Amino acid sequence: MKVSVRVIPPDRELKIKTGDNLRTALIESGIPLDSPCGGQGTCLKCKVQLTGVSRKHTELEREKLSRKELDEGWHLACQVKVEEPGEVRLPEVEVSRAKASFGLLGEEISLRPNVRRLRFELSKPSIKDQRADWNRLAEYLEKSAAGRLSAGLSLLRELPTRLREWNFSGQAVVVGNEVVELDPRGSDSDILGVAIDIGTTTLAAALVNLDTGKVVALDAELNPQIVFGADVISRIMYAQDGTAKREKLQRELVKGLNQLLLRLCHSARREKERVFEVTVVGNTTMLHTLLGLEARNIALAPYVGGLNRPLDLPAIELGLQIHPRGKLHIMPSIASFVGADTVAVILATRMHQRRVPRLAIDIGTNGEVMLATGKEVLTASTAAGPAFEGSRIRYGMRAVKGAISSFQATPEVNYSVIGGGAPSGICGSGLIDLVAELYRTGVLDQKGRILRPAEISTPWAEALAPRVRIRDEAREFVIFRDEDREVTLTQQDIRELQLAKGAIRAGVELLMKEAGISADDIQEVLLAGVFGNYINRERAVVLGLIPVFPLEKIHFIGNGAMDGALLALLDMEERDQAEKIAARVHHIELSGRPDFEETFLRCLSLGNK
Amino acid sequence: MKVSVRVIPPDRELKIKTGDNLRTALIESGIPLDSPCGGQGTCLKCKVQLTGVSRKHTELEREKLSRKELDEGWHLACQVKVEEPGEVRLPEVEVSRAKASFGLLGEEISLRPNVRRLRFELSKPSIKDQRADWNRLAEYLEKSAAGRLSAGLSLLRELPTRLREWNFSGQAVVVGNEVVELDPRGSDSDILGVAIDIGTTTLAAALVNLDTGKVVALDAELNPQIVFGADVISRIMYAQDGTAKREKLQRELVKGLNQLLLRLCHSARREKERVFEVTVVGNTTMLHTLLGLEARNIALAPYVGGLNRPLDLPAIELGLQIHPRGKLHIMPSIASFVGADTVAVILATRMHQRRVPRLAIDIGTNGEVMLATGKEVLTASTAAGPAFEGSRIRYGMRAVKGAISSFQATPEVNYSVIGGGAPSGICGSGLIDLVAELYRTGVLDQKGRILRPAEISTPWAEALAPRVRIRDEAREFVIFRDEDREVTLTQQDIRELQLAKGAIRAGVELLMKEAGISADDIQEVLLAGVFGNYINRERAVVLGLIPVFPLEKIHFIGNGAMDGALLALLDMEERDQAEKIAARVHHIELSGRPDFEETFLRCLSLGNK
Repeated sequence: MKVSVRVIPPDRELKIKTGDNLRTALIESGIPLDSPCGGQGTCLKCKVQLTGVSRKHTELEREKLSRKELDEGWHLACQVKVEEPGEVRLPEVEVSRAKASFGLLGEEISLRPNVRRLRFELSKPSIKDQRADWNRLAEYLEKSAAGRLSAGLSLLRELPTRLREWNFSGQAVVVGNEVVELDPRGSDSDILGVAIDIGTTTLAAALVNLDTGKVVALDAELNPQIVFGADVISRIMYAQDGTAKREKLQRELVKGLNQLLLRLCHSARREKERVFEVTVVGNTTMLHTLLGLEARNIALAPYVGGLNRPLDLPAIELGLQIHPRGKLHIMPSIASFVGADTVAVILATRMHQRRVPRLAIDIGTNGEVMLATGKEVLTASTAAGPAFEGSRIRYGMRAVKGAISSFQATPEVNYSVIGGGAPSGICGSGLIDLVAELYRTGVLDQKGRILRPAEISTPWAEALAPRVRIRDEAREFVIFRDEDREVTLTQQDIRELQLAKGAIRAGVELLMKEAGISADDIQEVLLAGVFGNYINRERAVVLGLIPVFPLEKIHFIGNGAMDGALLALLDMEERDQAEKIAARVHHIELSGRPDFEETFLRCLSLGNK
Repeated sequence: MKVSVRVIPPDRELKIKTGDNLRTALIESGIPLDSPCGGQGTCLKCKVQLTGVSRKHTELEREKLSRKELDEGWHLACQVKVEEPGEVRLPEVEVSRAKASFGLLGEEISLRPNVRRLRFELSKPSIKDQRADWNRLAEYLEKSAAGRLSAGLSLLRELPTRLREWNFSGQAVVVGNEVVELDPRGSDSDILGVAIDIGTTTLAAALVNLDTGKVVALDAELNPQIVFGADVISRIMYAQDGTAKREKLQRELVKGLNQLLLRLCHSARREKERVFEVTVVGNTTMLHTLLGLEARNIALAPYVGGLNRPLDLPAIELGLQIHPRGKLHIMPSIASFVGADTVAVILATRMHQRRVPRLAIDIGTNGEVMLATGKEVLTASTAAGPAFEGSRIRYGMRAVKGAISSFQATPEVNYSVIGGGAPSGICGSGLIDLVAELYRTGVLDQKGRILRPAEISTPWAEALAPRVRIRDEAREFVIFRDEDREVTLTQQDIRELQLAKGAIRAGVELLMKEAGISADDIQEVLLAGVFGNYINRERAVVLGLIPVFPLEKIHFIGNGAMDGALLALLDMEERDQAEKIAARVHHIELSGRPDFEETFLRCLSLGNK
């Protein structure tokens, strides 16, 4: 005999054979339940709450669960034999957001999202009240919705059956002014949203419960477009050959986003059909490729894209797999090389509101520099290239397991590897550490040249000089070596880093010059970017990536662009702010300046002279 | 050698071999050019204007064309040999609207359509002005558009190429707040709209030049859904079996509309891609089937449809073949049996504005009755059935060639046939004449019974009695007979007409009773409907279709529903009015009244007693 068990989330009705083990039954039904001990009752990860029925706890449960948990009806699914119909609640999976600027600001975030849940209880049709179904519903909802509501054909087609099934009461999910879904009365199905940051190299996304404002899952993924070129210019070059290639870029990106969405929902045990809105930030080129817009003019002087305004469109138009009537909000960009990601960083850091000079740098494949002068915000984009994200670096990789993420010469070679074990490559923060340390210890000269062992004259020479060797007629520094593999830093790697660092630093210098502000005037320096939190501030100064600032003025804000996208997802007021930022920020086109070339060349040198 | 000839309308570039005859070349290129004489130079129908070049006129042209035509460069295409590149203008095809209420009202109609043409001349991008293409265009257009403009992805994808091709100036076609098309500067391509009236039996449509407000083509077509049932109830019954049948009804209707659109455009030599908006009226059930909405609840007490509000949607969502980004505006309905067609009649007749009592009847497959009391407008719907449109009548047909459209007994049988010749059937106005005349001459009694020849005792008996005969055990009246065919009026036909007449008359009586108004109070009676203009007013009174009114108070207004749809196409203010009408009109549900049955039965009798 089978009994009916309702599982929340995702609010699914399962038919389970009586006598079956609950943990096994859940897993077999595709409910992801993390239980590494395999049902031994030792890992305590399969906790579930049985509501509606009171079940005796097993001896093991009484031993392992707290008094409170026992009182609230929590069990270990692996210890429960299914006997009668009932309701099983899985614990909320909650991700604490690493070091989000939310925390940094210590602000209370308002929850005024574009997606709203409106309950309704309609009077029933009669000969005296013959209003059509949609008229009846819309008139009711408009009392609390402020403004005229609309509905698409597919919802209107469902409406008559739903209303009668539910006796004319239920809940409407409204996105903007459109009713996109109807739920029965009393349903506690989630209302979800997703914030996405489309980087040239990395896609990042956060799944948010829009009833509570809580982030319930965070994840990242390589941008699948990377096979068509590591930086925006090479993507633009690839796509300019015609519509087919533009469509291919778009398709690959959407495929990647759908994978990411699916994984987010899976890990948080949510259904993707409950995602009603997605806010999207990214650099201007990425947003163009997402929308299938021609990006060629971005790369040609005077660098004019197709669209910098915000755009709202049905997710289905791009093939994004959320609720079939769900919406997409593309945030506004400032200029061809200062995209919605920068707007989002400014929004999240409140740079546009504070009245003291502040500097922010968003380090990704492009490096965007923002300088708040106290009166206005200046921005510049720098073609930093993908070195910080591991591209074009011989042993470069993203900040995942196996990556060297920090490095110190004591003079012994000392480094930490993400996840432990032998290193398999170097991520952005490791690269900065390596070059900064090798420069400090005299293995590199100011021009970034790896010296011949004989040339190294510092106290660290004895320990470090033997690691310099020649391969393919170029010098390299050996970091790690065993029988199977090695990890080295090549002269070419250092050149790549210098180009990136030089570009960003030149941007900082030129913005300060434009604003008539010196490094001493700046009250706060914010470093954003997916790997921002791992950078060693001191080394960034040693390297010359940023001017000499007191370390306590330098703060890491993680992926500020994602924070901005989240703010716009949670609060319509923030979305309005974003548009004002995009319209008001003063963008400085560096390539148009006569002093750019000279500044850039000067900034290629290592150090802060 | 081929030369390039621009033909306007439809503004197409043709390549024509030099030496070719212009008329032949145009016809072969698919430009419809009516020339019944086959190029003899006698019918004068192939007049074209050659602009840009001055061409000598042939002797024949000098003889046939007026001084003014010769001066303006008009030629007969059949007399022109193509010699050099140039421009050929075809004459405007203009349809004079039969007896539209526009004329009746003698009002000046304002031209404030939802479709607008906005010219633009943008500043070119530079390092000092890096606004993205869409930002640049939208900011320019918004200066004259009042309000924020949007654009769909497909237009945004075309934008960069178009702007650069045209050196940043051109024209935008805007529907509502969306830019839907871009034309080059100086293009005089038409901006077209279509008004559609979806009747249960007949689809009617008008093609309008939205720059001038002129109707350039009018046409009608049978509703292809007719094979699924003659009236709305049988269509609803057909579709209630499931989605597949609902979709079939919708598909057939859209197919019919597309044929009609194509024919309209062809006859007016316009391209369907230049139609940017369609306004649609129809009864509530037809609008539901058009949208694929469930209509079952329309037929079940308390008769509540899915949607009576107006609805705007992309035409492509229904598969309507106009401009790919063109829009559809479905006008609002009042109740399940008082649809947007009735709203449109009220709008066109200004019944909602005048302060004297007026009665209007829209005679179609359903009969809608409107009574303006001077303070408010009451409406009722009556299940008149399709008798007036020829359905369920043995020799019934629409008012097309071969139909008996009027009838008189002098006592000889006298009738007129549309298009002349022998009759092949009877249309609505003929049916009314027949029954009214046969009643007046005593062939029918008050109950509608065809008397036995021996029972007929009036002075007309000698001429008419021999025409009464028995077939299939029922009596019928023979109108026409030769070796090949005959046309008769059967007892059953008369019953059908009585049901229709009784329903409408009962509606009139009950509305007057509800409002406390007598026939004498009513200052004007308006008869609308596709065949309205052909009804003999006197006979309508004799029959008892309407109460006894002085004939000069009775006016025919033709297809008033179409006029309302046209008003909404031409003037947004009228569209707003329509919504107010739908919200304010007081609908009386006849079936809910205790006095309905008795009134209806009484009204079945012929005559005005």
